[in-house]
Amino acid sequence: MFSVPTLIVNEAQCKANIKFMAKKAAANNVVFRPHFKTHQDIRIGEWFRNESVNCITVSSVRMAILFADNGWKDITIAFPLNFHEIDSINELAAIINLNIIITNEESIDFLKTNLKTKTGVFIETDCGYHRTGVDVEKTEVFKKMITEICKIENCRFKGLLAHFGNTYSVTGKQQVLDIYSQSLKKLNKLKDGLKNEYENILISIGDTPSCSLTDSFEGVDEIRPGNFAFYDVQQLFIGSCVQEQIALYLLCPVVDVFPERDEIVVYGGAVHLSKDSAMLNNERIFGLTARWNGKKRGCIIPDSFVKSLSQEHGIIKMPKTEIAKIKPGDFIAVLPTHSCLTASEMKHNYCFV
Amino acid sequence: MFSVPTLIVNEAQCKANIKFMAKKAAANNVVFRPHFKTHQDIRIGEWFRNESVNCITVSSVRMAILFADNGWKDITIAFPLNFHEIDSINELAAIINLNIIITNEESIDFLKTNLKTKTGVFIETDCGYHRTGVDVEKTEVFKKMITEICKIENCRFKGLLAHFGNTYSVTGKQQVLDIYSQSLKKLNKLKDGLKNEYENILISIGDTPSCSLTDSFEGVDEIRPGNFAFYDVQQLFIGSCVQEQIALYLLCPVVDVFPERDEIVVYGGAVHLSKDSAMLNNERIFGLTARWNGKKRGCIIPDSFVKSLSQEHGIIKMPKTEIAKIKPGDFIAVLPTHSCLTASEMKHNYCFV
Repeated sequence: MFSVPTLIVNEAQCKANIKFMAKKAAANNVVFRPHFKTHQDIRIGEWFRNESVNCITVSSVRMAILFADNGWKDITIAFPLNFHEIDSINELAAIINLNIIITNEESIDFLKTNLKTKTGVFIETDCGYHRTGVDVEKTEVFKKMITEICKIENCRFKGLLAHFGNTYSVTGKQQVLDIYSQSLKKLNKLKDGLKNEYENILISIGDTPSCSLTDSFEGVDEIRPGNFAFYDVQQLFIGSCVQEQIALYLLCPVVDVFPERDEIVVYGGAVHLSKDSAMLNNERIFGLTARWNGKKRGCIIPDSFVKSLSQEHGIIKMPKTEIAKIKPGDFIAVLPTHSCLTASEMKHNYCFV
Repeated sequence: MFSVPTLIVNEAQCKANIKFMAKKAAANNVVFRPHFKTHQDIRIGEWFRNESVNCITVSSVRMAILFADNGWKDITIAFPLNFHEIDSINELAAIINLNIIITNEESIDFLKTNLKTKTGVFIETDCGYHRTGVDVEKTEVFKKMITEICKIENCRFKGLLAHFGNTYSVTGKQQVLDIYSQSLKKLNKLKDGLKNEYENILISIGDTPSCSLTDSFEGVDEIRPGNFAFYDVQQLFIGSCVQEQIALYLLCPVVDVFPERDEIVVYGGAVHLSKDSAMLNNERIFGLTARWNGKKRGCIIPDSFVKSLSQEHGIIKMPKTEIAKIKPGDFIAVLPTHSCLTASEMKHNYCFV
């Protein structure tokens, strides 16, 4: 049935992950605007629709067009405005409810003369991750930017959008929740400083660790997690999920077995898994492993991990007792370190089981 | 003209890189069988044809089919035999001169009953890289394997194929050449131990650092470098090339500028560049940078590098004096750490300049 590295989605588990987050959002009365950059698949999009999701997040204009073509009518492009795609943005905003994000004053100047269609605008707010966004402490800069945005006929100012991406570099529920609560406190302080002049400022947040682990979305209007649909080894190590929740894996043919090195070699390399990594006992690893019974993966094999990746080769460390059961031609399931990137490497060609 | 991250090939430089290696092979009287996994492009394949190349290397059956469909008649699949693709191998070997590589005795047993068409067979030989292949010291294992291979009607035993991949983890010409000469010495010692019983054993080697830096291919019959067509930052740091020879880069729109952090943010992330990295002053980096004049990239900007990559974002460190010249909407050229993987991320969609 399978002959080359194949990307498997456990459909029941993925649907359960989606249902869990949809219910949590509904119970907390926040808008659920899941990030579709993780799966980028119109069939998985339907699984979200079945949970009453009708607004989504993407990270490129190309993805927005893909999902708009599939009937999604309310899309936020959560990536800083790329001036060179303004024509596509104008076209898209004419047919759907489109939101873009702005991270600097140059972008506002650009929109003044180039935005031709009514578009929602968020200001990306940096609460400590320091990737993009305006520093959350700079209330006066926000005031100036919002004032300018509100002057532009085609801009509808929506609110403050943040990504607490620093939760990806910690481990443990408490550390995630500390970042979440501190970042959210800063965001709401900023909102308080703005609310006398500007009404209805939405707070949109979105990282999978926070959304998975918090019990309270107080002070939040909208959540945008994406990775949780699949989860992965990075999220497992952070503590955002348990291993049963990891719904995506790469099925790899074994091509060589080295009992004397405690290693096997699989067809499944950097172009299939991506070179993103996670740290395990001070070692950089590229995935965990599980057996495959012809239909489903088993539990994670203890003391086994992907040690290195070439373009097409994966080198897997494994205890001798496990290696003794494996021969060339068998299949091994590799749980990716970062499912979003593995899905991208595999061009979002999924096999649903 | 450009609106999203775009993969640029400097056509003149790429052709010069190809010509350089083709001439070197010819001058040393070795077969030049370049690895096409790097570019995977039929147009670039023509540039090799123009240098009289007529036999090539690939790393998957899929790639072999791609190039066979484009008229290449002599192809080695330099990846351990994947049992599950035997039908495609049999079909391909019926129409072209196909070589496969064997790394273990199980594969020979498999071929006995499953190889239906005449196919060349190399034994992959591990000279110290420890990825795949039979340990070069185990002469008796080779004898047993070659004997068994020669008994199979459809197998034509060709020789010993090795990849000195450990040259990728050193820096400096001397270190590369030390690995090259030591590995080659072991290979030829093995060949000497076999030559009384088996004639015409070919020695095929292939890493870009060795092939770029050695002046002598004595003891070698065939070379299979691939990366040298583009080169990249890893090769620059090893010392295999100079910066002018790097013929591939990703053109990225600037979306934000942070003078206070000495950083700019570009549209160009892990899904464009890959998360492969190189070490610079003990820091893990994901690319180097150059200015773009609308037609060509400039020299590498000193003290500037890609510090981190998210799915679509690239965070670039840059001196203030450079940042002062950059604004959102500009383009920056990013020289990839590993051009093979960047080309794969970009689905081998090249723009030739």
